[in-house]
Amino acid sequence: MTENTVLVLGSDPAPNLGRLSGRAEVIFADEKTLADRLPTADVLLAWDFTSDAIRDAWAAGGPRPGWVHTASAGVDRLLCPGLIEDETVVTNARGVFEQPIAEYVAGLVIAMAKDFYGSWELQRQRRWRHRETLRVAGSRAVVVGSGPIGRAIGQTLKALGVKVDLVGRRERTGDPEFGTVHASGALDGLLPTADWVVCAAPLTDETRGLFGRKVFDRMKESARFINVGRGPMVIEQDLVEALRGWRIAAAALDVFQQEPLPSDSPLWDVPHLIVSPHMCGDTLGWRDALAEQFLDNYDRWAAGEPLLNVVDKRLGYVPVQ
Amino acid sequence: MTENTVLVLGSDPAPNLGRLSGRAEVIFADEKTLADRLPTADVLLAWDFTSDAIRDAWAAGGPRPGWVHTASAGVDRLLCPGLIEDETVVTNARGVFEQPIAEYVAGLVIAMAKDFYGSWELQRQRRWRHRETLRVAGSRAVVVGSGPIGRAIGQTLKALGVKVDLVGRRERTGDPEFGTVHASGALDGLLPTADWVVCAAPLTDETRGLFGRKVFDRMKESARFINVGRGPMVIEQDLVEALRGWRIAAAALDVFQQEPLPSDSPLWDVPHLIVSPHMCGDTLGWRDALAEQFLDNYDRWAAGEPLLNVVDKRLGYVPVQ
Repeated sequence: MTENTVLVLGSDPAPNLGRLSGRAEVIFADEKTLADRLPTADVLLAWDFTSDAIRDAWAAGGPRPGWVHTASAGVDRLLCPGLIEDETVVTNARGVFEQPIAEYVAGLVIAMAKDFYGSWELQRQRRWRHRETLRVAGSRAVVVGSGPIGRAIGQTLKALGVKVDLVGRRERTGDPEFGTVHASGALDGLLPTADWVVCAAPLTDETRGLFGRKVFDRMKESARFINVGRGPMVIEQDLVEALRGWRIAAAALDVFQQEPLPSDSPLWDVPHLIVSPHMCGDTLGWRDALAEQFLDNYDRWAAGEPLLNVVDKRLGYVPVQ
Repeated sequence: MTENTVLVLGSDPAPNLGRLSGRAEVIFADEKTLADRLPTADVLLAWDFTSDAIRDAWAAGGPRPGWVHTASAGVDRLLCPGLIEDETVVTNARGVFEQPIAEYVAGLVIAMAKDFYGSWELQRQRRWRHRETLRVAGSRAVVVGSGPIGRAIGQTLKALGVKVDLVGRRERTGDPEFGTVHASGALDGLLPTADWVVCAAPLTDETRGLFGRKVFDRMKESARFINVGRGPMVIEQDLVEALRGWRIAAAALDVFQQEPLPSDSPLWDVPHLIVSPHMCGDTLGWRDALAEQFLDNYDRWAAGEPLLNVVDKRLGYVPVQ
């Protein structure tokens, strides 16, 4: 049997793939060399999941790997018509980010309810100013995205006493934890009920630009918006106008149209907008967890067994069973 | 039957006691007039719970009200030898603050685990700097205080997957939610296990100055300290030295030796110290909830029924049933 070649896009820092020693040839590529090396690969590991290089390289033609694994939950950076039509199997990092992201969103919800940011600003000014804040328990959240990350967010918010409506692509009734998971068409009707609107959906043709003026106009003036999905789901200029116009109370973005966010972006200092650098799911040890997850799936690949976390390439995510 | 006189300490803002109209005479006092008016009162409502005036007034002698209710969980501001020895019944605001304080502490835990404060500082500087943060689930908390507030904090942290040890005055085994509630003597042994040490105990002779150098020295260098109890339980200078010396990682104080914290206090700008103005339990509508709670107990008082939330004046808190 010929040794498999595992091509890794990205090496800063490199994944720990020591378990492949003697079992596969591991070669690395960067954005510039990817297209040249792709025809030699049996397996492609998209370790640098911030790159669009796979889409470009795929279009160049030639032999293609039978399996592409991305060290991310979202697959929007790599899916392209050629990859969708090829027989190549795509898998993702489902299971690594859910709980950290859910904790992060719960923290943002409490931080906004309790005005931690106001207190911190007052601390800088050495001013003691008591305020009355909000109860989290009993408030209502609409979480857009009913995959594992959206569900984990919903579960964690429910544990804090928040009433949660999950919105997915299609309606699903009888969900043991959320009752009815609403179809995307129900979003308009749910928005006016929400104290918190959380975007945790995959970036697809359906969700691109979903959160724009029409959405923000339907939200309560006291409501807050949180995006932990992908930047292009939000029309950033519309969000800025909604915040500057006091049409919604606050927002937190961990993801952006352009990442890293340039230092001259106007988003850095919009009132009541919290900016963080796409880190909500990244807890200590996450890179090792991502490498282990790939290696476990590699064992299946080498043994001819079905892979875990197979993406439906036309939907753009791993369907919930 | 002579109309009862209800004396209210504090009137800024005044409680809504409309339900007493025609049933009791309501008179108000401030710190200066309290001693003069106390002998006329059947009931004293300590509405301004930040004042020490009751202790001073009680010592002046003369007839004393049969019931004192304080619009706070802690009774440290009013208990004094005379009040303890008199037959006067003391009740507190148990039930109003538990859930808001628990949410607040959970928010601080997540905010510190996810370095929200670091992200906010970087946002001010318009700098995109990804960091790896901590998982909350699986971390360990020691909550000092096993009354309703400590229990609510413990329950909320448990809902986030934190392993929680509660510490009370005496050991109690077989607790349905926490297993063994540890005796105060067990604290030294628990401190090195904790990622989070939370003070939610009543201020008593036993807890005054409890959190000093010896405690901070036993904590992990990576651990964080949170005080939502009362300021005098912490030796503030020792905490400052522990933070400046990197002996613990961070702290958050909502309560202080001196409140309001003076603008020239060194506490405002200690590295990794979060300061907030004694507001962790105060959600919108809290004053109305406090007034309603007093009025409900007043109905019992007027009917000769047992009062709710009766403080054990020698212990300094309402014993858990």
